[in-house]
Amino acid sequence: MIVDILIHAGWIIPVEPPFDTVKDHTLVIHDGRIIDLLPTRLAKQRYKGTTVETLENHVLLPGLINSHTHAAMSLMRGIADDLPLMDWLQHHIWPLEQQWMSEEFVKDGTDLAIAEMLRGGTTCFNDMYFFPDITAQQAEQAGIRATVGLIVIDFPSVWAKDSDEYLQKGLILTEQLRDSSLCSTAFAPHAPYTVSDAPLQKIASYAKELHCPVHIHVHETQHEIEQAMEQTGKRPLQRLQELGLVNKSLVAVHATQLTDAEITLLAKAGAHIVHCPESNLKLASGFCPVAKCLDAGINVALGTDGAASNNDLDMFGEMRTAALLGKAVANDASAVSAMTALRMATINGAKALGLADEIGSLRIGKAADVIAIDLSTLETQPLYCPVSQIVYAASRRQVTDVWVAGRRLLQNRQLTTVDLTELMPRIAAWQQRLAEK
Amino acid sequence: MIVDILIHAGWIIPVEPPFDTVKDHTLVIHDGRIIDLLPTRLAKQRYKGTTVETLENHVLLPGLINSHTHAAMSLMRGIADDLPLMDWLQHHIWPLEQQWMSEEFVKDGTDLAIAEMLRGGTTCFNDMYFFPDITAQQAEQAGIRATVGLIVIDFPSVWAKDSDEYLQKGLILTEQLRDSSLCSTAFAPHAPYTVSDAPLQKIASYAKELHCPVHIHVHETQHEIEQAMEQTGKRPLQRLQELGLVNKSLVAVHATQLTDAEITLLAKAGAHIVHCPESNLKLASGFCPVAKCLDAGINVALGTDGAASNNDLDMFGEMRTAALLGKAVANDASAVSAMTALRMATINGAKALGLADEIGSLRIGKAADVIAIDLSTLETQPLYCPVSQIVYAASRRQVTDVWVAGRRLLQNRQLTTVDLTELMPRIAAWQQRLAEK
Repeated sequence: MIVDILIHAGWIIPVEPPFDTVKDHTLVIHDGRIIDLLPTRLAKQRYKGTTVETLENHVLLPGLINSHTHAAMSLMRGIADDLPLMDWLQHHIWPLEQQWMSEEFVKDGTDLAIAEMLRGGTTCFNDMYFFPDITAQQAEQAGIRATVGLIVIDFPSVWAKDSDEYLQKGLILTEQLRDSSLCSTAFAPHAPYTVSDAPLQKIASYAKELHCPVHIHVHETQHEIEQAMEQTGKRPLQRLQELGLVNKSLVAVHATQLTDAEITLLAKAGAHIVHCPESNLKLASGFCPVAKCLDAGINVALGTDGAASNNDLDMFGEMRTAALLGKAVANDASAVSAMTALRMATINGAKALGLADEIGSLRIGKAADVIAIDLSTLETQPLYCPVSQIVYAASRRQVTDVWVAGRRLLQNRQLTTVDLTELMPRIAAWQQRLAEK
Repeated sequence: MIVDILIHAGWIIPVEPPFDTVKDHTLVIHDGRIIDLLPTRLAKQRYKGTTVETLENHVLLPGLINSHTHAAMSLMRGIADDLPLMDWLQHHIWPLEQQWMSEEFVKDGTDLAIAEMLRGGTTCFNDMYFFPDITAQQAEQAGIRATVGLIVIDFPSVWAKDSDEYLQKGLILTEQLRDSSLCSTAFAPHAPYTVSDAPLQKIASYAKELHCPVHIHVHETQHEIEQAMEQTGKRPLQRLQELGLVNKSLVAVHATQLTDAEITLLAKAGAHIVHCPESNLKLASGFCPVAKCLDAGINVALGTDGAASNNDLDMFGEMRTAALLGKAVANDASAVSAMTALRMATINGAKALGLADEIGSLRIGKAADVIAIDLSTLETQPLYCPVSQIVYAASRRQVTDVWVAGRRLLQNRQLTTVDLTELMPRIAAWQQRLAEK
């Protein structure tokens, strides 16, 4: 049978039960989908490929899914570090956004973020920022998969003047993206402390009707809890529950402050958590009890947050930090294993975004969102266990090739849909503007 | 004036008070030492260089100092992960060492570790392993700086049969290395729970006489403390104090379990701590109170530990983890700033090893241990603050050039004193042997 692409790989980690690694196997891709995964000697008998890649030092993995970021904030990478959270937000980030945030800001910042993510093996990102229409447009242009957040917040911005307008523009965008194969949408009410009850109730009902996730920062800090107790007499998660938002559509980001009862609540509801360890550490937000949440049956995915509080969009680094930190937090060196961290960065993210039928693992029938990483460099030698090496030793710079829906977006470390000679001057211009302060 | 090397750099971070970053400056190197650091336009008037490097997208830094590692354990990178500590040691690491550890093991493993460290901008490492004579030999051969540990442990090994023999061999090696410009020695009693009082007392006295550091794992886990209380009625640090070891020679590794009184004790004694965050997280050992220790005036350096519990020897990654974790542990997003993390990886390590007159910062008169890192790649753009970008965004793979004592060991990402075509087959052979289990 003639197929579009055959990739003969040293190893393949499909991230499918029983979560094995197979050696000397071939991934068969046709019409943008995975149609077979089998030993290479059999593949060579059964298939002829229009494109044939032999990647013998490489491991093939599902493309990584960055389940929480603010892509355009890449323009503010490192602009203000080592500051207490409120000082950082109020005196640095928000003033800069007020001064500079625009369609052009979002276009250029998103382009930079996408280039970084593709080079680092991320094939899908879950975004929350202004001008989500621009984010979707740039994602389509680069060929990367994205869930764009229909941002809702009580405060006016250049994107919308009040929560009704935020919602309205979001619904229009959802409709426009209905036939997109790469872009989907999620409602993205910023946080319990920036969105009032009425818009949250509307979102609860639209999300159910349109089968969209609800992507929201929840219980990020102890301070958020304390403020909510003062203002409403209840913890934010309880308020969200009363508003009908704690269910399988909920994509709760950070969740560093959870009681045992809240863990049980989220587990029973089938809600999802997005763990952002580097952001939580950098902003001293707290420690998400990841091992406990996983043990309770909660689907925990992984995200980098924005580049201004990380300061990279590196899902390999994030997997490592999650696996390391999770052990110490659980006081158990066997907690949050390498395979668990890899699942958080792939299939768990797909589940959180409602895309588990399409992506998140290398299974026959799914979209061909695949990455190849070269483990032959000395930094990842000697090699005993590919999964472990990927999580505990490899760098994203060892990613050589990336496909999304069977289209190659990174070939031998070169981006194929992004022109850096055209992008970097735009970024340099932003550096000049933002640095003048 | 004609000098050996002129390096015209985009930025230089000397890591000297007032801890500034300077732009468009030149480092002047002659006879292996730094003889000037000045604006490039002045340098071009005053000096002619035999070798002239123009690195306009790069930052020059002091070479990074890995203040605690077990270099040869690179051969066991990833061989056993996600296991509780005692299971890992007793059923995996110790049996493998018993079976395989030898001069050849140490030679090949050390060579791999040195190659990895040089490629990642580390110019000096503080080692603790068997056959320290081999470690010193391999370091001299590669041209990297090393403090080799004169290991002392109660148990017999292929290196020595009892603590007297360990000590004797160590003293012989110290004498042999007396005139080495690259290698120095430290006494390296493994840990309080593996070394009895008599050898520790001898070490206390030799260290004073020979002005050597004493490099020891201390208070790594709560379990260590509990066992010591059971067996001796006192915490290990108290026992070490009574044995005369808590003084400015002490290089206490890990120190995750410290009371306020112990912090005061270490500060008053002028002792040093080596913080190994990734190892502490991976083995669920605990959280070193780094910010508290620094605030108390303790010199805190940074180390990767061995590649079997990290799993890399990446000092850039270690700086990042230290800066991120330190904030969350201190519950303060302004704690362990980027510059603090950089100091931990450079001048603080030099102080711990008694080498602060020679290395650890780019100061006139010091040895030219220098690295260059290219910040122009998209992953570190836009660039607002080089120190921050290095700690929170850069990868060790952006290191392009490395000099130790003015000799270039990495040129445009290529190792100049290590032949990888000769090294990697040796490593592959070890992979085969160790994998058969």
